[in-house]
Amino acid sequence: MPQVVDLTKALIAAESVTPARGEVFDVLAQTLAVAGFEIDRFTVGEEPDGPVENMIALRPGTRTHLAFAGHLDVVPPGDGWTSGAFAPEVRGDLLHGRGAVDMKGAIAAFTAAAARVEGPTLSLLITGDEEGPAIYGTRAIIDRMAERGLRPDLCLVGEPTSDQRLGDTIKIGRRGSVNLWIDVPGKQGHVAYPQLVDNPIPKLVAALAAIDAIVLDHGNDWFQPSNIEVTDVTVGNPATNVIPAKASARLSIRFNDEQRGEDLVDLIERTVALHAPEATVIARISGEAFLTEPGPLSTLVADAIAAVTGVTPALSTTGGTSDARFLSQLCPTVEFGLVNATMHKTDEAVAIADLETLTDIYADIIARVAHG
Amino acid sequence: MPQVVDLTKALIAAESVTPARGEVFDVLAQTLAVAGFEIDRFTVGEEPDGPVENMIALRPGTRTHLAFAGHLDVVPPGDGWTSGAFAPEVRGDLLHGRGAVDMKGAIAAFTAAAARVEGPTLSLLITGDEEGPAIYGTRAIIDRMAERGLRPDLCLVGEPTSDQRLGDTIKIGRRGSVNLWIDVPGKQGHVAYPQLVDNPIPKLVAALAAIDAIVLDHGNDWFQPSNIEVTDVTVGNPATNVIPAKASARLSIRFNDEQRGEDLVDLIERTVALHAPEATVIARISGEAFLTEPGPLSTLVADAIAAVTGVTPALSTTGGTSDARFLSQLCPTVEFGLVNATMHKTDEAVAIADLETLTDIYADIIARVAHG
Ligand SMILES: [Zn+2]
Ligand SMILES: [Zn+2]
Repeated sequence: MPQVVDLTKALIAAESVTPARGEVFDVLAQTLAVAGFEIDRFTVGEEPDGPVENMIALRPGTRTHLAFAGHLDVVPPGDGWTSGAFAPEVRGDLLHGRGAVDMKGAIAAFTAAAARVEGPTLSLLITGDEEGPAIYGTRAIIDRMAERGLRPDLCLVGEPTSDQRLGDTIKIGRRGSVNLWIDVPGKQGHVAYPQLVDNPIPKLVAALAAIDAIVLDHGNDWFQPSNIEVTDVTVGNPATNVIPAKASARLSIRFNDEQRGEDLVDLIERTVALHAPEATVIARISGEAFLTEPGPLSTLVADAIAAVTGVTPALSTTGGTSDARFLSQLCPTVEFGLVNATMHKTDEAVAIADLETLTDIYADIIARVAHG
Repeated sequence: MPQVVDLTKALIAAESVTPARGEVFDVLAQTLAVAGFEIDRFTVGEEPDGPVENMIALRPGTRTHLAFAGHLDVVPPGDGWTSGAFAPEVRGDLLHGRGAVDMKGAIAAFTAAAARVEGPTLSLLITGDEEGPAIYGTRAIIDRMAERGLRPDLCLVGEPTSDQRLGDTIKIGRRGSVNLWIDVPGKQGHVAYPQLVDNPIPKLVAALAAIDAIVLDHGNDWFQPSNIEVTDVTVGNPATNVIPAKASARLSIRFNDEQRGEDLVDLIERTVALHAPEATVIARISGEAFLTEPGPLSTLVADAIAAVTGVTPALSTTGGTSDARFLSQLCPTVEFGLVNATMHKTDEAVAIADLETLTDIYADIIARVAHG
């Protein structure tokens, strides 16, 4: 039976800055094969967003099919690490290394739990691209499952959802996200002759002021209010006596399940057009909002957490988007994993005790699904 | 007696990208000395805005002291000239070369006119820095005149004021100019957690929208309305998911004689503070508005133009600022010179006939001052 700490170390040591391929999958696949899983590794996509390696590990069982989803790629380490980002090191109670909490530790914990508890059909849906463009990651896994006629009944995503202590937060949904780029054209000229020019900045400013005045909604039981932020404005005019030919802005909207990305794009386009009819708006919807309403799955996960730790988790929908947005279209999906304080940071680290406890919780979840 | 075309050529050939020093002053000083002028050349200022060479050429006479003001420096030629920018060349009716109209041609014309007509006390106030920072240019000449106890009664600035044809426009004033830089600080953070950050962009946008709504005045008999332009906005945030720490904008205000630079700065500061109390505003007043109300001097110049050309000039205050802003504090000041269509451009050129006609007009002005 694999030890969760050893497996986490081995996964960290297999350097896998996004997109992950090869060795780190070898390490995990070997361990899962020993635990009785049948391994399906496949590589999809082309430059620039691919190729990406993915893996579906399946162990048939009785009753319900529980899928555990995760990613083996990690964000670049950056500078300033106390020990090597890819040289896992235990100091005191902590295991340090890139991916310790996001999310090689959780993958190791689920693998160790699956080796310990049998019963339901289990799958691990592991992608090598969640931190990157994610075009050929979880989406490709879902396509592959459809081809193979696989459809999980419940999905648990191992992202580091815990906030202050392990078990305090489950995510039952996430907000959607859309970025927009606004370009307002004008007519360049000298400030001394304003009648001969067409300054694009006042139009952009008026559009942005109108956008700033928009109240999308007030949130609801499960989501905070949808929010529009202007994240950049660019004119790029070095000359104090010249009126520029173009002014641009970028928006980021995080929205709840009362909004749809397409409608928001439409709203922004109409608002901009009122103040700058010649403007162009380009939008990229990264993900729609999704929600698995509190129900049997969240109760099951919360009960397992409470049984192992005594903590009653909060059900949250905050934070950025995650691959749970794709999986939630298949079946009830919740996210639960390690404490996220150090994710994406220098000296990312996981408490050794948390790895053991998370393994116990995941094992209890598997057992509850078996008997549910 | 110097020929205006030959002198213009000689001045063009003495390359003098701003700041001008040395040779080009030698050429002019020699010609003026022959015409009876006493030459006072002096160099003032230190890096970065100096040193700058200036010259006061004085020929005592009877009655009124008429000063002619001009600059021997030129803007850089840039690329794409048909013949060398500093190799004066006549093609057809035109003499080509950097400075042909702005304003070596006019200086040559006044020199030729002064050689032809005697009478009033005449001075040429010639700076080597009008196109550059202009810190040690005409201002230093005014200081030097004060030290020497010289005070002109009338001032004619030889800038290229003519628009479509020689003689169609005299400038009797110019608008003032002030540039402002607005910096709004914020608190950087992730767009997913807007409650933890402080986006500076909406505050800047609100301030700019309020500034855009300001009507300073409606202009008057001699000036167009004062005008505020936002000429740049900068955030410089490459990350779509990050709310930036700072947002900046730059304004350019061109204002008429109903406004004062200081009051405008105060108005902008108060408007910005309403929407972005933490913002800083930095202002640089390049020049106050000035006006020589239509009167004896503008009438005299207009009469000379009409007598020589048959054209009745318009009295204008449009365009950028000029050194006339300093001289107008001493005495009635008007600007009149060549056609400005090619100034600061590639293939700058003056019509040979215009050089001769401008000499005639300047000679007539000197004669009218003598008999006025
Ligand atoms: Zn992650
Ligand atoms: Zn000039």
